[in-house]
Amino acid sequence: MTDREGAAAEYFSTLDARDWAAFGALLAEDVVYEMPQTRERIVGRERYVRFNREYPGEWRLEARRVVTEGRHAAALVDFWIGEDHQAACVWLDFDEAGLIIRVTDFWPEPYDPPPGREHLVERY
Amino acid sequence: MTDREGAAAEYFSTLDARDWAAFGALLAEDVVYEMPQTRERIVGRERYVRFNREYPGEWRLEARRVVTEGRHAAALVDFWIGEDHQAACVWLDFDEAGLIIRVTDFWPEPYDPPPGREHLVERY
Repeated sequence: MTDREGAAAEYFSTLDARDWAAFGALLAEDVVYEMPQTRERIVGRERYVRFNREYPGEWRLEARRVVTEGRHAAALVDFWIGEDHQAACVWLDFDEAGLIIRVTDFWPEPYDPPPGREHLVERY
Repeated sequence: MTDREGAAAEYFSTLDARDWAAFGALLAEDVVYEMPQTRERIVGRERYVRFNREYPGEWRLEARRVVTEGRHAAALVDFWIGEDHQAACVWLDFDEAGLIIRVTDFWPEPYDPPPGREHLVERY
């Protein structure tokens, strides 16, 4: 496992554990967090740790898969609040020092399939 | 570039080019395509190529980023129909022969940010 593979895995395990010291130690001071769906951005480690610390609800999460190559990682994450489950797609960028300099989160929601492809598709 | 990195990049370039022969040649015969948001599944290369060939609209796409590690790749994809833009997160699995055996697509939609975090967040 490379340092970045380890850091990507720890990003999710420390977040789930609410271990804010260990979580913050993975982040560059000028980390940028973006959610393209809401066009929200958080700049800086302190604010970003606080955002997670304040995130409401009895949430927990687990990385189902982490793919790391060079300075980039992508994770498919299972996120629960109580019984509610949501998947998230998280993109991490590392700086030269191996710290996380950018986080980009996507939170896809269920939707109804459009008509016209029933001849090819099964539901599960 | 490894064979799988090349195959992951070609998956998107041949799809955008509607080069169905080259696109199909990247896929295992028993490829499984899943969209977890709609819980739709397509099984088999022939059906999956047909699904893409029949996909309505003047669409085009481009992989903004592809991360490949071992038998897995993740791509952040820009998708347009006319002027409408949507991002997609696509997860690819390769079989032993280097063919794509599983594709998992997420299509996150814009949404309004929940209240309560304005003290930490800027909009862009």
